[in-house]
Amino acid sequence: MTRIIVKVLTLGVLITAALTNVARAADPAKSVAADPLPSWNDGGAKKAIVEFVAKVTKKGSPEFVPVAARIAVFDNDGTLWAEKPMPFQALFTLDRVKALAPQHPEWQTQEPFASLLKGDVKAALAGGERAVVQLLMATHAGMTTDEFAKIVKDWIATAKHPKTGQLFTEMVYQPMLELLAFLRANGFKTYIVSGGGVEFMRPWSEKVYGIPPEQVIGSSIKTKFEMRDGKPVLVRLPEVNFVDDGPGKPVGIHIQIGRRPVAAFGNSDGDLQMLQWTAAGSGPCFCLYVHHTDAEREWAYDRASIGGLEKGLDEAKARGWTVVDMKADWKRVFPFEKQ
Amino acid sequence: MTRIIVKVLTLGVLITAALTNVARAADPAKSVAADPLPSWNDGGAKKAIVEFVAKVTKKGSPEFVPVAARIAVFDNDGTLWAEKPMPFQALFTLDRVKALAPQHPEWQTQEPFASLLKGDVKAALAGGERAVVQLLMATHAGMTTDEFAKIVKDWIATAKHPKTGQLFTEMVYQPMLELLAFLRANGFKTYIVSGGGVEFMRPWSEKVYGIPPEQVIGSSIKTKFEMRDGKPVLVRLPEVNFVDDGPGKPVGIHIQIGRRPVAAFGNSDGDLQMLQWTAAGSGPCFCLYVHHTDAEREWAYDRASIGGLEKGLDEAKARGWTVVDMKADWKRVFPFEKQ
Repeated sequence: MTRIIVKVLTLGVLITAALTNVARAADPAKSVAADPLPSWNDGGAKKAIVEFVAKVTKKGSPEFVPVAARIAVFDNDGTLWAEKPMPFQALFTLDRVKALAPQHPEWQTQEPFASLLKGDVKAALAGGERAVVQLLMATHAGMTTDEFAKIVKDWIATAKHPKTGQLFTEMVYQPMLELLAFLRANGFKTYIVSGGGVEFMRPWSEKVYGIPPEQVIGSSIKTKFEMRDGKPVLVRLPEVNFVDDGPGKPVGIHIQIGRRPVAAFGNSDGDLQMLQWTAAGSGPCFCLYVHHTDAEREWAYDRASIGGLEKGLDEAKARGWTVVDMKADWKRVFPFEKQ
Repeated sequence: MTRIIVKVLTLGVLITAALTNVARAADPAKSVAADPLPSWNDGGAKKAIVEFVAKVTKKGSPEFVPVAARIAVFDNDGTLWAEKPMPFQALFTLDRVKALAPQHPEWQTQEPFASLLKGDVKAALAGGERAVVQLLMATHAGMTTDEFAKIVKDWIATAKHPKTGQLFTEMVYQPMLELLAFLRANGFKTYIVSGGGVEFMRPWSEKVYGIPPEQVIGSSIKTKFEMRDGKPVLVRLPEVNFVDDGPGKPVGIHIQIGRRPVAAFGNSDGDLQMLQWTAAGSGPCFCLYVHHTDAEREWAYDRASIGGLEKGLDEAKARGWTVVDMKADWKRVFPFEKQ
C-alpha cells in the first residue's frame, strides 16, 4: 500500500509540475508521464473530470472556485473501495464476534450471536435491524476510543478479503486513488462521507487515501468523557449517535464542514441526497456515480442489489451527472491487478 | 474589522519572514517590527507561548510536532471575545424574540416571552433550563440553515454591545487575534471549540478570526434534509443535537477532528475537560487559561461568576498550565482601544 501511496503522491507532484510546465514545453513524452489519471480510459468520465477541474481552477474564468471552497466529498463503500460480498465493516464485526466469543459463553445460545458463531450469517441477520444493532454494539462499544482504534488497526493490518485473499486496504479502486490525488494537486480538500463508522475509517484513511482524520465524516455511536485512574478517556457507549447515510449525508456534511461541496462522488442511492445537496449550490458543481458493471474484475450490480443504485441512475441521467461505467472506463480496478 | 484582519495577516507574513531572516540579520529595528505578539506584555504568558511554539516547530528536536498534528483549540466566549454582560448569543436571542414578537401575539402573555418583552430578563429566566431552551428554539429553529445564516449575518453586521456601543465583532481580544495568527504562521490549524451554537459562529468566524467554517466546533440543534419546490434544504428542528460544553468539548473534538490537540485555550470551568484531554496527550502540549482580571478595560470575574473559573484555576496551578492575567499580561484588550 505504501508503494501505491508514494506513487499517488509522486503523481500529485508530477501533475503540479506538469501544470506549471504546460506553457513552457510540449514534449509529448512528458505529457504521457504526467497523465493524472492513468488508470482511466480516455472518454466520457475522464474527460468530464478533467474539464471540470480545468474550468474551476482557471483564474479569471466565470466558473473559477477559490481554493477554500474546493470541497470534494466521497462515499467510501463501493466508491473508494469494494463492498462485496458485504461492506467490510460487517466482516470486521463478524470477526470481532468470533474473537470475543470466549469471553461470552452466553453467546453460544443467544441470538444473533449463536447463529453467527455457527457460520449462519443469514439466520443471524433474520432479526433485522435489532440484530444488526446488537452485533454492532457488542463489538464496537464498551471500550475507550484509543482501544477501539487499536482493534481496528490490528484487524485492518492482517484480515483478508474472502474472495481475493487481499488485504482490505488493497481492495481500493486505483482510478479513485488517482482521482483523489488529482483533485488535491488542484487545491481541493478531499473528504470521506460514509455510512460506515467514522472511527472504523480514521485509523487507516490517511495512509490508504491520503485523507486525514478531520476530513472523515461517518456514522457514530455516542462517547462519554471519563476520568480513569486520573487519566481522561472517551468511552464508547452502546448507543447510536448519528447515521451518516442517505438524507443523513448532507446533515453530516453541514455539521462537520459547514459549507457546501462543489464535487460529490458516490455509488448508491445512499449517496443521492449528498449529490443533490452538492448539485444545488449556486456555482459550478460536479456529481459522479460509480456504476458497478464489471462482473469479471469486480462485481456487477445496481438496481436490484442491497445498497444499490436505483433512483440515483435515473436522476444522474435526468440531470446530466457523470456515470462511470467501471468495465469501460477503468483500465485497471485494483492496485494488485497485473498490468 | 477588515483592517484588523489585514493587519493580523500581514503580521503572519512578517513572522514567517522574521523566522527566515533570524539567522541572517540581527537588525534590532526589524526584530521589534516582527514581534508576533505586540499586544502582549513581555513576561510569563508571552514567554511560555513563544517558547512552546519554538520547541515544537524545531526540526530534529525531541519535542518536534509534525505540521499535521499541530492542532490548537480555542474556546470562544470569554477566550476570543468578551462574554459580559452575558454571552453574545444570548443577546442575539433576546433581539430575535423582539424582532419576532409581532408574528407571535401569544408571546405577550406566555412565559418566558412575556417577561422578556417587558425587558425583565431575570423573570424570563426564572424558568431555568426549560425557559432557556424555549427561547432558543423559538429563535434558532424552524428555518433553513441558509435562512438562519442570513439572520446571523444581518444581526452581527449591525447589533451593538450594550456597554461599549461597539459591534460585537469588535469585542474580540486583540492579543488573541495575534496569537491565532502566530500559531497559524507556525503551521498550526486553529479551531474554535465553543459551547455556543456552531451555526451562530460560522457566518463570521473566518472574517473575524481567520477560522474557516470546517474548523468551528460548537453546540447544535438537529437538522433535517428536505426537498422544497424541488430544491434540497436543511431545516433546523427545535431539538438539541449536541451540547459542546464541559465534558462535551473533548467529545466534540474527537468526533469532528479525530485527533488530540496539542494546544488548548479557555477561560472557564466549561473548558476544563478540553484542557485535561489536551494535556493527556503523549507528546508536548500547551494549556492556557485567560483570567479576567481587568475590571477597567474589560470585566473582572472568576470563581463566583456564572461561566466562571473555579476548578480550572486550581488545576492550572497544580499542573503548571499558563494563566493569562489580563490586566498585567495584555498591553491592549480590544482592537478599538486607543493606543
